[in-house]
Amino acid sequence: MDAQTFLTDFHHVAAIGATPAGGVDRQAATAEDKQTRDWFAAFAADRGWPVRVDTIGNMFALIEWTPGADFVLVGSHLDSQPLGGRFDGAYGVIAALHAADRLADRAGRGEPAPRYNLAVVNWFNEEGGRFAPSIMGSSVFAGLMDEEAMLRVTDLDGTTVRDALDAIGYRGTDPRPTAAAYAEIHIEQGRVLEREGIELGAVDRSWYTQKLDIEVVGEQSHTGATAMADRRDALVAASKVVVLVHDVTTEFEPESIVSSVGHLTLEPNSPIVVPRRVHLVADIRASSPAFVQQARALLLERISRVAHDHSLTINVTDFDVRPVQTFPQRSLEVTEKVAASLGIGVRRINTMAGHDSVAMNRIVPALMMFIPSIDGVSHCERELSSDEQMAIGVDALTAAAWELLHGELDGHGPAKAADGTP
Amino acid sequence: MDAQTFLTDFHHVAAIGATPAGGVDRQAATAEDKQTRDWFAAFAADRGWPVRVDTIGNMFALIEWTPGADFVLVGSHLDSQPLGGRFDGAYGVIAALHAADRLADRAGRGEPAPRYNLAVVNWFNEEGGRFAPSIMGSSVFAGLMDEEAMLRVTDLDGTTVRDALDAIGYRGTDPRPTAAAYAEIHIEQGRVLEREGIELGAVDRSWYTQKLDIEVVGEQSHTGATAMADRRDALVAASKVVVLVHDVTTEFEPESIVSSVGHLTLEPNSPIVVPRRVHLVADIRASSPAFVQQARALLLERISRVAHDHSLTINVTDFDVRPVQTFPQRSLEVTEKVAASLGIGVRRINTMAGHDSVAMNRIVPALMMFIPSIDGVSHCERELSSDEQMAIGVDALTAAAWELLHGELDGHGPAKAADGTP
Repeated sequence: MDAQTFLTDFHHVAAIGATPAGGVDRQAATAEDKQTRDWFAAFAADRGWPVRVDTIGNMFALIEWTPGADFVLVGSHLDSQPLGGRFDGAYGVIAALHAADRLADRAGRGEPAPRYNLAVVNWFNEEGGRFAPSIMGSSVFAGLMDEEAMLRVTDLDGTTVRDALDAIGYRGTDPRPTAAAYAEIHIEQGRVLEREGIELGAVDRSWYTQKLDIEVVGEQSHTGATAMADRRDALVAASKVVVLVHDVTTEFEPESIVSSVGHLTLEPNSPIVVPRRVHLVADIRASSPAFVQQARALLLERISRVAHDHSLTINVTDFDVRPVQTFPQRSLEVTEKVAASLGIGVRRINTMAGHDSVAMNRIVPALMMFIPSIDGVSHCERELSSDEQMAIGVDALTAAAWELLHGELDGHGPAKAADGTP
Repeated sequence: MDAQTFLTDFHHVAAIGATPAGGVDRQAATAEDKQTRDWFAAFAADRGWPVRVDTIGNMFALIEWTPGADFVLVGSHLDSQPLGGRFDGAYGVIAALHAADRLADRAGRGEPAPRYNLAVVNWFNEEGGRFAPSIMGSSVFAGLMDEEAMLRVTDLDGTTVRDALDAIGYRGTDPRPTAAAYAEIHIEQGRVLEREGIELGAVDRSWYTQKLDIEVVGEQSHTGATAMADRRDALVAASKVVVLVHDVTTEFEPESIVSSVGHLTLEPNSPIVVPRRVHLVADIRASSPAFVQQARALLLERISRVAHDHSLTINVTDFDVRPVQTFPQRSLEVTEKVAASLGIGVRRINTMAGHDSVAMNRIVPALMMFIPSIDGVSHCERELSSDEQMAIGVDALTAAAWELLHGELDGHGPAKAADGTP
């Protein structure tokens, strides 16, 4: 029924920061991010919902049926990767706004009154492309990251999170709503649902992830006038590390582990100078912590061999270790109940990527749903889900949020980490 | 006799833009480059020598004995690589200033009057670290590069050569002196002289050099949520290219060829995004054009195999091809004669690196001398020649310039390229 109004809004927001190849470029706290935030605020204002902005730039649009009651939070993030897709994050926020609109209507029609109030949330900087680490706003909300430290994080130009938020007028002072539960819908970022022709995924657990900060320290010299034997070329050694990080995955079962280097800088980066230093970040994720730890051990050994062969130093530091998070059993059952009532297919599914829901699941019971993503691509301009797939997801999110508003997850969370850090 | 005044000046200039590890950071048209330029201008002003600055920022300090006569140019460059050495370039300019000081004195004592006037030159942007290509000022002077195009070249921040020169007040309007011959002294940037215990090198020819501009175009995707089989990772392919560029040299005789990648950028360069595009520059140099062409052919074949294996596109373009330049036979004889008169050792030697003298050799007869460099390192903070080695070089340059001022190279140049471009 309301599918068309949702789709109109979705495609309108997809035009903000749109790229010629069909994606969007709306990194956190940029002018384009501000435009989507203004749109979010206007959507709420049109309906008389007050909007709060907290001190790390998270936005909350509030619907209060019972003054003083806690809130079910529903949302995702409007920021994107540089040249990212138009679905990742934005779909979940716009779906949440429309779900809230329907729920406000439904609650007003005298159905059993919700136990909780509702807040639609747009989390700050889920992507982490401009300001690392990712999942920043929800992690600060959940107490997993220190707010002051995050406000001091800088982008490549040296701009801090604090200044960037001030520049777009979205570093607020409002109190945060107290959360009772959390729900989020997102495109799958994988091709399991598409391959099996299933409309909805009930996310049961996140993958184990960790990053390696790798610094290769060689010696600067003249590219044209230093004999090959006299060189300690940081880029040649770093390139071997990149290939090792990629190739280590071939020693595990297919689709059980992923690994890559997405960030690399070299100094001095002059065409006629042998590089003295390369800094790179490797990202390793697997369904099991054991796979990550095994890959890490293999890499450390092989990287030290590269350092030895090239007579240079390679420093490797673990960071951003994110243990497996298990979503509450009851939240899976809620998603399955909703799917049955809508007559659509559902299956339990892992999330390989991190999400705001994974952070929120640490402090309240959380529910996460996936819709199919064509070709399973993400962080990519050709990311795509169909209008029909999206509309089904909005229906499912609406129904699930209704359950949460009535306390369906009470006493079912937060889940504890399935395991500690290594 | 004057060695101490030269050394005092040399070590004074080495303090401008000095780095903690003993090098200098004085990239072209920076505040530090301005400081060395101001020092050069003050040296000339103290002696009453007029200074001209041309439209590409080259500086000329003039000593005119015969109004209207052409000039013997003697000099090098005061700019450095980022975290470069304090000898590369600066030694040649300061040696030339002190040689000029001695020659002015000698010419004033009634010895046979010079046929030509003398100009000490500080060439703009020999290094090319901030603004590519390198050897810019002398190449514009020699008509090998287009001045308007060079003024439009930008650094990584988008600043043009024109604006950078204006910002330091060194984009001049003065006419260029007409050159009759050119002399330059430089540290070897190799370890041949050191290994053989010889004080002076008479540079006979330059190496054949060329660059390859390499663009790897893959597809952006989510590092954490894209199966390894679905990725087209531009950085993994680029890393294999970097290793190929390095390893191809092992198929040739030792010390006959060098090759490296000094410049590499990736997009979007986010820790959690598989890179979509990598741009890199490979630099290949050899004593013989045949070696470079053979290495290039091997690389093109191997790079196309990498592109095929990773299902992505790699575009390779040749640029900055610099054929072998032969210095005039007579200029080698002049250097050998000077060495004999000073009682020091001399040998003929190739230059692997490009120099302002190589550009000048295209339009006038040029003479290039090397002094030993400890460990043969260059473009590096630990670059080192001893005070004694430097002082001998100043004596040799003074004596050689005296020969050129009396027409010793007349009719002996310019040399033609030993071969054409491939």
